[in-house]
Amino acid sequence: MTSLNEKEIREWKLLSSEYLYKRPWLTARMDRLEMPDNTIVPEYYVLEYPDWVNIIAITKKGEFVFVKQYRHGIGKICMEICAGVCEDSDKSPLDAAKRELLEETGYGNGSWKELMRLSPNASATNNMSYCFIAEGVEKISDQSLDVSEDISVYLLSLNEVKELLSNGDIVQATMAAPLWKYMNMINNR
Amino acid sequence: MTSLNEKEIREWKLLSSEYLYKRPWLTARMDRLEMPDNTIVPEYYVLEYPDWVNIIAITKKGEFVFVKQYRHGIGKICMEICAGVCEDSDKSPLDAAKRELLEETGYGNGSWKELMRLSPNASATNNMSYCFIAEGVEKISDQSLDVSEDISVYLLSLNEVKELLSNGDIVQATMAAPLWKYMNMINNR
Repeated sequence: MTSLNEKEIREWKLLSSEYLYKRPWLTARMDRLEMPDNTIVPEYYVLEYPDWVNIIAITKKGEFVFVKQYRHGIGKICMEICAGVCEDSDKSPLDAAKRELLEETGYGNGSWKELMRLSPNASATNNMSYCFIAEGVEKISDQSLDVSEDISVYLLSLNEVKELLSNGDIVQATMAAPLWKYMNMINNR
Repeated sequence: MTSLNEKEIREWKLLSSEYLYKRPWLTARMDRLEMPDNTIVPEYYVLEYPDWVNIIAITKKGEFVFVKQYRHGIGKICMEICAGVCEDSDKSPLDAAKRELLEETGYGNGSWKELMRLSPNASATNNMSYCFIAEGVEKISDQSLDVSEDISVYLLSLNEVKELLSNGDIVQATMAAPLWKYMNMINNR
């Protein structure tokens, strides 16, 4: 690794912090910061979120469990892996991921491991998104959706997942990253 | 592709929209929505951002141009690919990417193509992040940073990039996804 400008990068100093908005789905904070060269940044906005989880869930037959839902931020209907938010009642991100997969798809059991941790936006959000792989999952219950969820469940072959990725149809960055990592892993097996 | 619950997923209907906050770095909107089953969602928050860009920039010698900077959202110093925001004066995301690479690193020229488009958060943000590959870039100027940027530039070998990815050191989802996609592409060449 060659450094081109030999400058040491240091953390910025928090001078003060004020909450602008606190609602169940939006918590916005304004920080006043001091940079290492003493420049003052008077309005630095941070959005506080609980951690997120998502799951590459694969059945014993090698089918990938996907969900389809409307995403109002971009105004589009998206094919996705199952995802959700860590609740206070979840003991860990893994627990949250198992709960979300069961609620949204009815799938459970299997062998779980963490694949990666990502930041949706390292400059402006404070949370991490944990991605798990669950191999050998099976259908053990019905869907159990919140009132504000409208989700349909699909089983996809590996080739169908590759096609979604190649076509750019997996638009959510926190899902595209683990899926491309997974494709890389199975190529190197 | 097998559908498990044969439910048609439809878009939600926008009933009304109100801006809560409009500042240069934070625009928050509250929408009132109607779901396909007529359920009313009274408070749906959307954060409006300009589109983002980032660049996998590779020199003629095969070195990867990386930047290091402090990211206050997660409170960490991060190794990243060069990234930025589309300005009104940029004619296209490609123009924005070329401008950002030049400003942050001093690198330019080379052969550019779009690698992928991602949503940082499809449910709650309205923008897309465009990732480009720029091959054969060369140092053509000095850095030209904004007053609120503190960035150092590094040249990495392919193996060093692979190591960062494998160690989970590329935390930003919009950067991890194109880098893993790139690794997959060169494996399949």
